[in-house]
Amino acid sequence: MNNDSITKRSEDFAKWYTDVVRAAKLADYTSVKGCIAIEPNGYAIWEKIQSIMDKKFKELGHVNVQMPLLIPENLFNQEKELIEGFAPELVWVTEVGDKKFDERFAIRSTSETVFCDYYKKHITSYKDLPKLYNQWCNVFRYEKETRPFLRSREFLWQEGHTVHATAEEAEKETKQMMDVYEWFNHEILAIPSITGKKTNKEKFAGAEYTLTNEDLMYNGVCLQDGTSHYFGQKFSKAYDVKFTNKDNKDEYAYYTTWGKTTRAIAAIIMVHADDYGLVLPPRIAPKQVVIIPIGNDPKVDELANKYKDELLKNDVTAYIDDSEKSPGFKFAEAEVNGIPIRIEVGKRDLENNKVTFVRRDTREKIEKTLDVNVVEFTKELLETIQKDMYDRALERREQLTFEAHNLEDMERILNTQPGFIHAMWCGDEACETRIKEIKGCKSRCIVENGEKIDDKCVCCGKEAKHHVIWGIQY
Amino acid sequence: MNNDSITKRSEDFAKWYTDVVRAAKLADYTSVKGCIAIEPNGYAIWEKIQSIMDKKFKELGHVNVQMPLLIPENLFNQEKELIEGFAPELVWVTEVGDKKFDERFAIRSTSETVFCDYYKKHITSYKDLPKLYNQWCNVFRYEKETRPFLRSREFLWQEGHTVHATAEEAEKETKQMMDVYEWFNHEILAIPSITGKKTNKEKFAGAEYTLTNEDLMYNGVCLQDGTSHYFGQKFSKAYDVKFTNKDNKDEYAYYTTWGKTTRAIAAIIMVHADDYGLVLPPRIAPKQVVIIPIGNDPKVDELANKYKDELLKNDVTAYIDDSEKSPGFKFAEAEVNGIPIRIEVGKRDLENNKVTFVRRDTREKIEKTLDVNVVEFTKELLETIQKDMYDRALERREQLTFEAHNLEDMERILNTQPGFIHAMWCGDEACETRIKEIKGCKSRCIVENGEKIDDKCVCCGKEAKHHVIWGIQY
Repeated sequence: MNNDSITKRSEDFAKWYTDVVRAAKLADYTSVKGCIAIEPNGYAIWEKIQSIMDKKFKELGHVNVQMPLLIPENLFNQEKELIEGFAPELVWVTEVGDKKFDERFAIRSTSETVFCDYYKKHITSYKDLPKLYNQWCNVFRYEKETRPFLRSREFLWQEGHTVHATAEEAEKETKQMMDVYEWFNHEILAIPSITGKKTNKEKFAGAEYTLTNEDLMYNGVCLQDGTSHYFGQKFSKAYDVKFTNKDNKDEYAYYTTWGKTTRAIAAIIMVHADDYGLVLPPRIAPKQVVIIPIGNDPKVDELANKYKDELLKNDVTAYIDDSEKSPGFKFAEAEVNGIPIRIEVGKRDLENNKVTFVRRDTREKIEKTLDVNVVEFTKELLETIQKDMYDRALERREQLTFEAHNLEDMERILNTQPGFIHAMWCGDEACETRIKEIKGCKSRCIVENGEKIDDKCVCCGKEAKHHVIWGIQY
Repeated sequence: MNNDSITKRSEDFAKWYTDVVRAAKLADYTSVKGCIAIEPNGYAIWEKIQSIMDKKFKELGHVNVQMPLLIPENLFNQEKELIEGFAPELVWVTEVGDKKFDERFAIRSTSETVFCDYYKKHITSYKDLPKLYNQWCNVFRYEKETRPFLRSREFLWQEGHTVHATAEEAEKETKQMMDVYEWFNHEILAIPSITGKKTNKEKFAGAEYTLTNEDLMYNGVCLQDGTSHYFGQKFSKAYDVKFTNKDNKDEYAYYTTWGKTTRAIAAIIMVHADDYGLVLPPRIAPKQVVIIPIGNDPKVDELANKYKDELLKNDVTAYIDDSEKSPGFKFAEAEVNGIPIRIEVGKRDLENNKVTFVRRDTREKIEKTLDVNVVEFTKELLETIQKDMYDRALERREQLTFEAHNLEDMERILNTQPGFIHAMWCGDEACETRIKEIKGCKSRCIVENGEKIDDKCVCCGKEAKHHVIWGIQY
């Protein structure tokens, strides 16, 4: 695959996106409609996401578990809001071999019911709390329209489910895990997410409130990417999760959940990729450096191997592309695959005392003499790329950030160039519904401690209560 | 939970097993019949299994992917033997929300169909080969009788699926992965598995042949634990997986699969655990050393922390149990959890210039003076424990290894004390069927290059072709 096959981003963003996914061999469609095969290049990114996040979760005291995939219908039914929120998307197991089951089983679309059912049995005293459990697994939601990574019927995620003895502690956890997601997006994915609270209309079915990370894609469309929910005692009442508190009284436990999915890979693509294919931030790239020896020359091969060994020894994931393809083909392949740095070295280069480093993000070629300290230079360059990618994403986000003071502003912006639209809101759901009529624009999040832009609601003109970011979403 | 609650192994092996699982908090039953919740202590063992095996797979050139959970019925039907082998155990998704699907989808019980469907699309030339894919995932088989880890309707596993340009290369892969499993059992789990070939009757549905690792449990019951299958061109013909070979001719690809499951945790328990609970081989123990300070004393705490820091710095996973429980309770908890080494230190010990190391496997107490090099001593002791555990398991296996020269021998052994029964076989399935009438005894594996015990088949007396191990299985 070379990068001629990628549609230009400016021509057709949707087609460009799927072209990038296919060119980098991240995922492909399968015989199961709406379900993808995550291919080695895509799964390696997910493994890197998993390893970095899992380490952080564990540092904060969380432990991993694995709960059942199937959920009996009666269990799901105990929490009305949850079943209502998910009912149309649930797929049901009804038969084994040729026999019908007495009861249907849903494939998990989320596991609150299952975790509460477990906690109910395993928590008796405040001494058993907190329980800080997480699981990495697959979930299924029967979405109508699907797109690889962005919206797939089956996807992979982690779901944290924690129970606490006090509301304060549970709310602290909800906030803490949101901070972890924000840190991950900013520092690892180089995506300048904005964190805020969902409105009641947009929060998770059954939650008291939902915190969210909102990313802005290159085309100005918004993406919810990581959420943390505080449930108070609502679910523990529905599922009877009680404990004896310090005063020796029965109390319902305080519950939180938080999750991040393979959708993060869609965000990486739609924030960073370009017309030449994928561009991976160095900290998430499974392979950070590709070394391409040009021509058949023992001295060139020797240098390539020396570079590789030195880089690997210093925790830079480098490899040599010594396949039988032409150098031009290898360059293109390194580009579509988004490898942050490409090192080119040939026989003539050796004679001319030079080696070339090519940045994937800017495609800039940097020539160095052969006495370059390859480890030091590469490590610095990787950090520069990481920082520059964040800065460019932030610049793009700022370019696509607007303020609306009335509905006309909203309409004009959404009809011209969508993005993050800051506007004041009265808190009334009717105004959210009215605004949604404009191209499906939704509240993304309430900016906590956000500055007051106006005194009045952007929609109804009544007294404004919240500074809200609005936008069109994936 | 303390270890008084564990039934004696000699009294009721099955109850002892589930008591050990519950006492060590490895897994528990759930509201979904036959499906377990893998709890933190159990999942941590699985994570360790994953990390060690995954590293080895990758060193051998394998890459991870993720294929869909659901398999359309028509796709499954393309390989007759596979669907026949699995049909009674398959559960089917038939509905989304309140609507019926036109076609049923099986939850994967194994993914040969899905991988072949993928490879069919992605392989054109011999240059695309080999493909060395693996996935870590959940699978579902509707078993009638279930037991945590041993036989669960949903379980976790890895399934390798590789395609090759030649039969030779594919057979080499089949053998290589079996060697990996054997290495893992011997070196990491301290289980002296025997490797061999399944008979045609016992091989995987649709495979040309199956290699297997057979473990012997403490009670003499056999456990199949890791298999590697060679399919030749059979599946690639059924699913049309073709490539253009070096002679520019179309050829069907050569296919292998291999898998190992959470059942490995059952094997660890049934080989190594005792009346006091779980006993973990040091190389698979998520926590290798627990340090228990006795009494409240700053000097004791200081020493405990010093030990912990030094051990962690030297790649020994140590932790301090500084909970508010009594020392006796902590000792019992460390025992039921199978922590390989317990270090006890109290105020009086300091005065008497001693620190006590307790081996979990033998429960032996080893007193050392305070000038002991804790890192060196602990590391040596961990290696000794690992080796001793293997040796004891091997000794037990040898105690329970028998030779049968005729059906009467077989019956006598199986009625007295089951184990690995070595006997010659003519190769006729009728004899396998006849032998199965004795307490369900099955062929475990054909010992490759096994010595000739007799000239004649243990059952029919005709000429013997194979040295076979027989036994009762889980």
